[in-house]
Amino acid sequence: MPAKPPSLTQRLTAEFIGTAFLLATVVGSGIMAEALAGGNVAIALLGNTIPTGAILVVLITMLGPISGAHFNPAVTLVFAIQKAISARDSWLYVAVQIAGGLVGVWAAHLMLAEPVLQASTTERTGGAQWFAEAVATFGLVFTIVVTLKHRESAVPMAVGLYITAAYWFTASTSFANPAVTIARSFSDTFAGIRPVDMPGFIVAQYVGAVIAAIVCHYLVGSRLGSRLGDQSSDD
Amino acid sequence: MPAKPPSLTQRLTAEFIGTAFLLATVVGSGIMAEALAGGNVAIALLGNTIPTGAILVVLITMLGPISGAHFNPAVTLVFAIQKAISARDSWLYVAVQIAGGLVGVWAAHLMLAEPVLQASTTERTGGAQWFAEAVATFGLVFTIVVTLKHRESAVPMAVGLYITAAYWFTASTSFANPAVTIARSFSDTFAGIRPVDMPGFIVAQYVGAVIAAIVCHYLVGSRLGSRLGDQSSDD
Amino acid sequence: MPAKPPSLTQRLTAEFIGTAFLLATVVGSGIMAEALAGGNVAIALLGNTIPTGAILVVLITMLGPISGAHFNPAVTLVFAIQKAISARDSWLYVAVQIAGGLVGVWAAHLMLAEPVLQASTTERTGGAQWFAEAVATFGLVFTIVVTLKHRESAVPMAVGLYITAAYWFTASTSFANPAVTIARSFSDTFAGIRPVDMPGFIVAQYVGAVIAAIVCHYLVGSRLGSRLGDQSSDD
Amino acid sequence: MPAKPPSLTQRLTAEFIGTAFLLATVVGSGIMAEALAGGNVAIALLGNTIPTGAILVVLITMLGPISGAHFNPAVTLVFAIQKAISARDSWLYVAVQIAGGLVGVWAAHLMLAEPVLQASTTERTGGAQWFAEAVATFGLVFTIVVTLKHRESAVPMAVGLYITAAYWFTASTSFANPAVTIARSFSDTFAGIRPVDMPGFIVAQYVGAVIAAIVCHYLVGSRLGSRLGDQSSDD
Repeated sequence: MPAKPPSLTQRLTAEFIGTAFLLATVVGSGIMAEALAGGNVAIALLGNTIPTGAILVVLITMLGPISGAHFNPAVTLVFAIQKAISARDSWLYVAVQIAGGLVGVWAAHLMLAEPVLQASTTERTGGAQWFAEAVATFGLVFTIVVTLKHRESAVPMAVGLYITAAYWFTASTSFANPAVTIARSFSDTFAGIRPVDMPGFIVAQYVGAVIAAIVCHYLVGSRLGSRLGDQSSDD
Repeated sequence: MPAKPPSLTQRLTAEFIGTAFLLATVVGSGIMAEALAGGNVAIALLGNTIPTGAILVVLITMLGPISGAHFNPAVTLVFAIQKAISARDSWLYVAVQIAGGLVGVWAAHLMLAEPVLQASTTERTGGAQWFAEAVATFGLVFTIVVTLKHRESAVPMAVGLYITAAYWFTASTSFANPAVTIARSFSDTFAGIRPVDMPGFIVAQYVGAVIAAIVCHYLVGSRLGSRLGDQSSDD
Repeated sequence: MPAKPPSLTQRLTAEFIGTAFLLATVVGSGIMAEALAGGNVAIALLGNTIPTGAILVVLITMLGPISGAHFNPAVTLVFAIQKAISARDSWLYVAVQIAGGLVGVWAAHLMLAEPVLQASTTERTGGAQWFAEAVATFGLVFTIVVTLKHRESAVPMAVGLYITAAYWFTASTSFANPAVTIARSFSDTFAGIRPVDMPGFIVAQYVGAVIAAIVCHYLVGSRLGSRLGDQSSDD
Repeated sequence: MPAKPPSLTQRLTAEFIGTAFLLATVVGSGIMAEALAGGNVAIALLGNTIPTGAILVVLITMLGPISGAHFNPAVTLVFAIQKAISARDSWLYVAVQIAGGLVGVWAAHLMLAEPVLQASTTERTGGAQWFAEAVATFGLVFTIVVTLKHRESAVPMAVGLYITAAYWFTASTSFANPAVTIARSFSDTFAGIRPVDMPGFIVAQYVGAVIAAIVCHYLVGSRLGSRLGDQSSDD
């Protein structure tokens, strides 16, 4: 246990590295899985789901005690509403999440010998998908907040398994994360989304997150712990 | 840990949300997996099994401390027999489980751009399947009660992994849950069951549950903890 | 926690139910997976591996505190050598393990509408397979004994994951268990083994188990805890 | 808990057995998965990934308390830099890791009736793959060091899940381990690498490891615990 709480720069570094590895895994495993699956999209999706769920457990386990392991502007917003993170810090979190996500996508492209700079052409739009993104983000925020309240040490496993499930009950594989949505618009691969389709997804995600915050307030009370992690006090 | 135990309305809300997400995952992942699997049913079943097992771990982890995370009228019956839940509350639990299951199915249909209202045409009947449902429900109740006795914090993982296994040793993918059976009759998709086949499944499920309660009584004694969760006292 | 340790009859009941569910899962998921996999054996093996690993975690978690959750005559032998179970009890354990295994196979056949009584015609023999069974059983016993010494509560997960791995590094999917070997000779399905090939497998399994006991003695000292479970004292 | 810390010979034995089982699983499951997958490489990779992740959790859980469960010269180097292992011991660790890896590969060949002595002909080279190996090893060392600092008991699960993810975001399935790289050059199968391509991989791995050590130093401070395991003191 650290003698002193992590500094803001350490926390931002953790958010950056975590979001970068999350996107490198989402995009990299999507490219690999599609390339190897011989046209069977369910197999490709298994090869995309399992790595994504796995890396989420790892990243939240190790970085939770440092930054809270948000990796997600919608999660940071909910924590800011609950005063678990200051307004200023929350903007810095969002900035490094977006930057980390982009670096993760580009690293995946480099590792798999793809052109680094791409723009997605995958259409993801329409009421069904927006509803699905709202539901998926509702579920993600609900999972984080309620688990954090009662069984804080189970948050990493809960989030990893939640996303594992949510990949399969949405047509979009549950982005559920504005930083992930932005980053994936820069990859014209299995995991991509057209830039023009971003706003619809991001609005839906914030709607789901805010509804979750309200339901959680009713269900488990007014105050979060300060972080996703279970060892640090807030500063 | 909450200063006071959750209210009945909070507990019913938890049962409703939990059963809704369970069915959204079962039906949604079934639709997705079948649509993408290119006719290979084993791949479709993997894509249905992994999300179902995953979401069960998540839902029981987070909602166990609030409502006990039954999500299943057969489980509620066993707890009522053991006086771990009052008769009145148990009827309310069953009502919201059924309602939550229906909402979950309809949400899955909406998210995947299917017609919302459907009735299943999938035939699931006959002695082998009824025997399988009885065995599967026996195993589920046995797992919950025995794990709850000795290693309460392991219940979420145990139930998720049990259903993961049971999906593959029954021809029906182990419904093992009357509320799930009712809800799945409203979906003419991979996970569906014809309304006319419901009664056979539900009777078999209750037979398995009651036998499990008797065997558990012999094996681990007379009294359950009050809930699946590990932090709340009963009210 | 039970006020008194489980009786011998309770322990034997636990071994019976546990071995029955283990075999129902191994054989049942093998039948299902092969029937649905469209001839792709790797997919069938995934559909056999995942349920088997999952049910092992469940069974050892819940029955470990009652019987030790051996489900395996080679494990019982090692515990008997270490005086963690009496000679008389160890023979009774082996008897109910074999009986439970048979009942599990027959239940799987019934659940999947197969003829109940069968004899396997799957040839599994030769030096490579015997060596593999010895290595697999060495690894299983080594995993149980060493994990039991240092991290008792991790035994269920360790055994489930070990078998998940061992299914894939042996040509036989790692029986690693004489009771399982006997039971699987009664199923002419994906998981079967010809009765005439049983003795070779069983001898190899005991050789692996005894070598593991010797190596473990060197590595972690002379005495096991009395059970796989972590709460009961021996009687 | 052992009354006295494990001797050097016991620790080397643990490193030897652990690295041997790791390689037997990586190479054995690779052979099996490719042989059964009917040409679908994504399915083969699933059948290689799941056993590898599983056995890593098992091996680190049980051998961490004895040797630290490095199984990897790059990990041993980082621990030596941090004075968590003496220089002399670190060389012995590397020697038994390489020897154990070779024995594991040969055991896999024997178990699957392949010729024992082979040399790989699989080309794995080029800037993209070297960059990927550096990133993968960076992530592995980062995961070990940061998790060890804050949640030591989670290290086995974190490493197993990290490698599960990393198999899919690199074109090479993330060797991330010089001893594994050497051993896999002796197998002309799914998991192989041409001897001539070894040096590039190994240099990239050490580069990634050293960068990770520097970033970790900044993020979580100067000192590791002495071992991957959570119970032993250093000697």
